[in-house]
Amino acid sequence: MKDKRVYIQEVATRDGFQNEAQFVDTDAKIALVDRLSACGYAKIEVTSFTSPKAIPALRDAEAVMHGIKRHEGVTYTVLVPNIRGAERALSCGVDEVNLVMSVSESHNRTNLRMSREQSFSQLRDVIGVVKQTKVAINVSLSTAMGCPMEGDIDQTEVLRWMERFAAEGVHGVTLCDTTGMAFPSQVCALCSDALAQFPELELTLHFHNTRGMALANTLAALGAGIDRFDASLGGLGGCPYAPGATGNVCTEELVHMLELDGYDTEVNLAELLSASGSLPRLIGHDVPSQLLKAGRRSDLHTMPCLSNDGLPEQRAFATGV
Amino acid sequence: MKDKRVYIQEVATRDGFQNEAQFVDTDAKIALVDRLSACGYAKIEVTSFTSPKAIPALRDAEAVMHGIKRHEGVTYTVLVPNIRGAERALSCGVDEVNLVMSVSESHNRTNLRMSREQSFSQLRDVIGVVKQTKVAINVSLSTAMGCPMEGDIDQTEVLRWMERFAAEGVHGVTLCDTTGMAFPSQVCALCSDALAQFPELELTLHFHNTRGMALANTLAALGAGIDRFDASLGGLGGCPYAPGATGNVCTEELVHMLELDGYDTEVNLAELLSASGSLPRLIGHDVPSQLLKAGRRSDLHTMPCLSNDGLPEQRAFATGV
Repeated sequence: MKDKRVYIQEVATRDGFQNEAQFVDTDAKIALVDRLSACGYAKIEVTSFTSPKAIPALRDAEAVMHGIKRHEGVTYTVLVPNIRGAERALSCGVDEVNLVMSVSESHNRTNLRMSREQSFSQLRDVIGVVKQTKVAINVSLSTAMGCPMEGDIDQTEVLRWMERFAAEGVHGVTLCDTTGMAFPSQVCALCSDALAQFPELELTLHFHNTRGMALANTLAALGAGIDRFDASLGGLGGCPYAPGATGNVCTEELVHMLELDGYDTEVNLAELLSASGSLPRLIGHDVPSQLLKAGRRSDLHTMPCLSNDGLPEQRAFATGV
Repeated sequence: MKDKRVYIQEVATRDGFQNEAQFVDTDAKIALVDRLSACGYAKIEVTSFTSPKAIPALRDAEAVMHGIKRHEGVTYTVLVPNIRGAERALSCGVDEVNLVMSVSESHNRTNLRMSREQSFSQLRDVIGVVKQTKVAINVSLSTAMGCPMEGDIDQTEVLRWMERFAAEGVHGVTLCDTTGMAFPSQVCALCSDALAQFPELELTLHFHNTRGMALANTLAALGAGIDRFDASLGGLGGCPYAPGATGNVCTEELVHMLELDGYDTEVNLAELLSASGSLPRLIGHDVPSQLLKAGRRSDLHTMPCLSNDGLPEQRAFATGV
């Protein structure tokens, strides 16, 4: 595994900010994306070209896309739900559009207000438009590892939707654990089959830490051969089904673990932590990131003052184990 | 892996409560242990026979041990730092004593106010006393996967201390990631070597979730063949080096993941969640457990009210992915 390249894709300014009650100023969004652009990401999902009425937090999508400075080597992607969104995104010169539908019929109807077949038909139209350009197309399949209403999602259903989109010529597919229902053995099985069946697709895993399993699932995905992950700075990104629970897998915690395990993410963890530390001021509350509180494994502490016998003057810590 | 037995050992009333500022009433501690005794644990670390001055939160160790109702099949263990603690523990009829020292010299001096050799010598005396009884002896090796002051801990050092205690005839050893510094590939290597070198020892892994890696590390340990884990209800158990960071690996999150992955823990998750929900009242603050907020994977939600066309009346959730 040593030095195996793993690609990190940041989603905080999209999946994170869309869930925030407090509007993040356009200038602050641009400054954050610019800061993240220097961190070594493979891809940044900058914003979402959804209806400003549906997601007012991202009503400034055009301004943000026009305001950011593009870095070479970073793919700038945006969420696009329909033709209108695609046209808006293309007018901003995005590198990639990220389409979205749910593998679960119930979730698709709840989240997108249409059946899966309606979604597919609409997204096929979007693909038709975008394919006339050089812009890459990714499809994010929500609830691919569990639906909060339907429960288990049959793996063959996931592979079937991947197949339909692969047939339309998309560049990549993201398997999304939208509400943190994935578990390691499931992830391993799904990823193995998906990689075997669609070797030509750029495959991304998108985990939420709703039930604490995001990094364990990452480990399972890595074991199956996955090398590309979405993550959210500070662990931003709530889940409407679990108020107060943590959001997307936290980028700095993901990178921290991957680097310790010998993977090469090309992400600058120190810069990431510094950027994460700026989030509470932007959104008005603390972020779920544990690493931000605890510091990196390599951030060592000094011993308390020692007395002459080489022992601490005071019992500093009470028999921690 | 299917149906492989994994043994869960609860430490909340010891590793959790010792870090709490608010004293938990003796009766409440007894009631909680009694409640946990019915949950299917292999072992419960009830309390700590340390000096009441050092850990006032557990100053009622005797009263708690005398007050609880023992369940058949549950091993009741207690932390014991020295001969005095061992005598107190033995007078309460414990099933096991859990001795403790650090693999890191700096951490041992900080935490226990003596050198490792002094600790070993003292613990050897304790082992001598306890071996005259039928009480089992476990040794918890703190900072076995990293020291907050020294950083990396050489794996050969960990195995060396295991060997010294194995030679004294202890029944089990717990490898403790005291401040959440372990990472998966390290855990896998250490566990594989420890299991190979000491097949006769009951080996426990004790993870903290300080940097979010506890469940990923658990997965790595399982892969290496470990089948016994300490965990803390609600994720209680702070780390003095990381104020505000999460504590021990959360029992309900551990059990939830293990059961989904097909392991047999024999722990009743519903009862566990119910008991975890009672903690905030006891300790006066929220607990780190995400599962308590999010609910189990199997706790499904109903779809929002549908209109005649089978679509939700209102857009319930804004394009979550």
